[in-house]
Amino acid sequence: MALQDIVAGPRNEQGIAAAIGILKQRFGENLHTGDAYRQQHTHTMSYMPGQLPDAVVFPQNSGDVRDIVRICADHRVPVVPFGAGTSLEGHLNAPRGGISINTGRLDRIIEVNTEDLDCTVEPGVTREDLNAHLRDTGLFFPIDPGANATIGGMAATRASGTNAVRYGTMRENVLSVTAVTADGREIGTGGRARKSAAGYDLTRLFVGSEGTLGVLTGITLRLYGIPQAIMAGVCPFATADDAVKAVIMTVQMGIPVARIELLDATAMQAVNAYSGVDYPEVPALFLEFHGTDASVREQSAAFGEIAAEFNGGPLQRASKAEDRNRLWKARHDIFWAASALRPGAQSLSTDVCVPISRLAECIRETREDSERSGILAPIVGHVGDGNFHALVFFDANQPDDVRRMEAFVARLNDRALAMDGTCTGEHGIGQRKQTALRKEMGPALDLMRAVKAALDPQDIMNPGKIFSLPPG
Amino acid sequence: MALQDIVAGPRNEQGIAAAIGILKQRFGENLHTGDAYRQQHTHTMSYMPGQLPDAVVFPQNSGDVRDIVRICADHRVPVVPFGAGTSLEGHLNAPRGGISINTGRLDRIIEVNTEDLDCTVEPGVTREDLNAHLRDTGLFFPIDPGANATIGGMAATRASGTNAVRYGTMRENVLSVTAVTADGREIGTGGRARKSAAGYDLTRLFVGSEGTLGVLTGITLRLYGIPQAIMAGVCPFATADDAVKAVIMTVQMGIPVARIELLDATAMQAVNAYSGVDYPEVPALFLEFHGTDASVREQSAAFGEIAAEFNGGPLQRASKAEDRNRLWKARHDIFWAASALRPGAQSLSTDVCVPISRLAECIRETREDSERSGILAPIVGHVGDGNFHALVFFDANQPDDVRRMEAFVARLNDRALAMDGTCTGEHGIGQRKQTALRKEMGPALDLMRAVKAALDPQDIMNPGKIFSLPPG
Repeated sequence: MALQDIVAGPRNEQGIAAAIGILKQRFGENLHTGDAYRQQHTHTMSYMPGQLPDAVVFPQNSGDVRDIVRICADHRVPVVPFGAGTSLEGHLNAPRGGISINTGRLDRIIEVNTEDLDCTVEPGVTREDLNAHLRDTGLFFPIDPGANATIGGMAATRASGTNAVRYGTMRENVLSVTAVTADGREIGTGGRARKSAAGYDLTRLFVGSEGTLGVLTGITLRLYGIPQAIMAGVCPFATADDAVKAVIMTVQMGIPVARIELLDATAMQAVNAYSGVDYPEVPALFLEFHGTDASVREQSAAFGEIAAEFNGGPLQRASKAEDRNRLWKARHDIFWAASALRPGAQSLSTDVCVPISRLAECIRETREDSERSGILAPIVGHVGDGNFHALVFFDANQPDDVRRMEAFVARLNDRALAMDGTCTGEHGIGQRKQTALRKEMGPALDLMRAVKAALDPQDIMNPGKIFSLPPG
Repeated sequence: MALQDIVAGPRNEQGIAAAIGILKQRFGENLHTGDAYRQQHTHTMSYMPGQLPDAVVFPQNSGDVRDIVRICADHRVPVVPFGAGTSLEGHLNAPRGGISINTGRLDRIIEVNTEDLDCTVEPGVTREDLNAHLRDTGLFFPIDPGANATIGGMAATRASGTNAVRYGTMRENVLSVTAVTADGREIGTGGRARKSAAGYDLTRLFVGSEGTLGVLTGITLRLYGIPQAIMAGVCPFATADDAVKAVIMTVQMGIPVARIELLDATAMQAVNAYSGVDYPEVPALFLEFHGTDASVREQSAAFGEIAAEFNGGPLQRASKAEDRNRLWKARHDIFWAASALRPGAQSLSTDVCVPISRLAECIRETREDSERSGILAPIVGHVGDGNFHALVFFDANQPDDVRRMEAFVARLNDRALAMDGTCTGEHGIGQRKQTALRKEMGPALDLMRAVKAALDPQDIMNPGKIFSLPPG
């Protein structure tokens, strides 16, 4: 979808005014209609123009969420759930106005069941807060999308990140949720059992639904024991192709790497310049191994042999926590590091994911395309999953630049689909990938629309996300 | 739901006759209306009375499935998909009559992508056929519910079994499906990417939907490398409580057991008598470890230490393939072994799954309940997941016996729910667990009903399963 197509939908002015009046009475100073609040609650992590909600409300508990949704439902007013504001696809925009629900005060960790390796949290808990809370238990929550997102936002977008190759994504790690649905009722999708065959998988239906089916009020998560031993490392390669081939071999051999991340040469230059590190400026893999001392040694030795086979190495190891943290901070700061390569430019992150056998080809063609198109687009990727991001920089004030960027992104999405992949491994559809979703899903998109219409007949739950394009 | 409540629904006699006429023309000798075929296609693995379809049709390809469903949709005739007939919950019954679709000839393995560790199969492929086909690739498909079920049936019921503690269930191992929906269209829910955030998780919606949303025509599965080393073993314990405590500790320590199965003393007696083995007739764990030689040794040694701590051991190891196969055959034959304890009796298998911290308590209370109630109910379980089966024997001709059995099962399901668990870990709802599902899901059941009504407005896809009780 081109920028100019992300248009505001029809606004229900009368309903919005009435709902705000009632919410004001009910929530007093926890409701904000000032410009500053409204601005802060639209989309800040991407180039997309903000579409402001009419008010921002801060519920204190799930009862408040029920009341907010009921009031909005009574007046057919859109509801946009807001976590930490780190979404990349316009999920927080309010194209038809309405009420932004900031879940920041729903930040209680309800229970941690150390024996069962699970916990239940409110949606506004961030992943860093959760892990800080867990520190003394010997457990951790592995899903790490980089940003300090909220668990609610991560569940809503089916997030993953660097640890997914070993621990899975939010899809695998949410055991159940509670949610307030479009009629203002709170429902629960299950208990704490590790597996269940009890009817439709409503948990997985809510995970990744981007706020379009309900507002999450509680999330029960799987936890993991902190590994006895952790070893990280950086491994340079002659070419990105070689690095990816080493990844494929590593995955096929069943080496249980916890993280295996690719940065291309441009990304490595950016990392050195921004993070004050001094890596070789060639394509590299950032890795992490989890296990017992013996198994970590075994894994890293096995990986070292594979790397050598594909013109890579040596693996520069980091075992001490501070060294590992520095390494992963450099990796996670890539967005800011790359931004510094072209100051003042806008950027977006693509998000394709392909079967790993096609990954080298997909990355190579994408790099060639960016070079041919004169687009700065360093590549970083969760390559163990087949997922990579091209960080595309462009000048939003130059229509030619925007057009060139959009054509590049469309070609990349088409390339991934032709390889049996997806346009989004972890960021979601939001506003910007609806054309790609239509291509990807074909007639299955009608099923999604039917589910949406059945569960939100007034189309008030985060409208304009996933589905705003007309059918066909 | 009591036996007598599983009643036939209203039959659309005229529509059925018309549809069979058209199907007869279209499918000729691949359509059967004789009693023998109709009998074979209802439920044979449980005590539930059979409710016969009016005809059985054998499609040869997915185009045939589309035609069958279109013809049935045109005449509002129920469609009941049939795999290997190993369902335990009445999924194959036809309470309103209609057409049973036998997927047995949809048995092609479409592709195996060894580099990507995935494959795509038609629904009628059995898991044993798939693994036989994969043998030369070094890969295997781990989900093992015991019976030689079809992949389509396993996906439809969200099956799991003995390997789930390490490899997950069908929920985690189906990458995408193709399905013919209630309007006779074939849709695909995704490609082969390992992860995706592309809209609603239709794959997970179809997995576990028990044929009520569509007929699966293709399933793309994750595969795994056959481990370099496999070691199995049997470990006796003083009490089932001790055994379960050892399981909890094993899981909490993060020992990546591939299988960890409990058999109580009664089950062990049955196994010895039936399978000609000679295990101590005390509660025991059947285990399997996968990995490198070194890690298998490390894992089994760590488990041995835990067992000793909880009055268990020694672990009797089996490394040779033939010894391991004998061990697992004895485990898998438990249904027949237990049946031999009370010849001529009917049986059913319960299927609760609870958080592992509650597992010892749940099993203990269940055993005490069966003793108090005079019910023969040996217990076997996938205890690493918190899932266990009581194999309940009763005389279906004795109303008192049936009532006692039903009350016992209802108490067991309630017990699991009170422990934050589920009434079904892997068998599904079908006809027999609808009351339990209602208790378990509360108002969330309305969401399932809404999804069903949206995707199958005529209620022709396996009607009377999951949902036949009136709302409320």
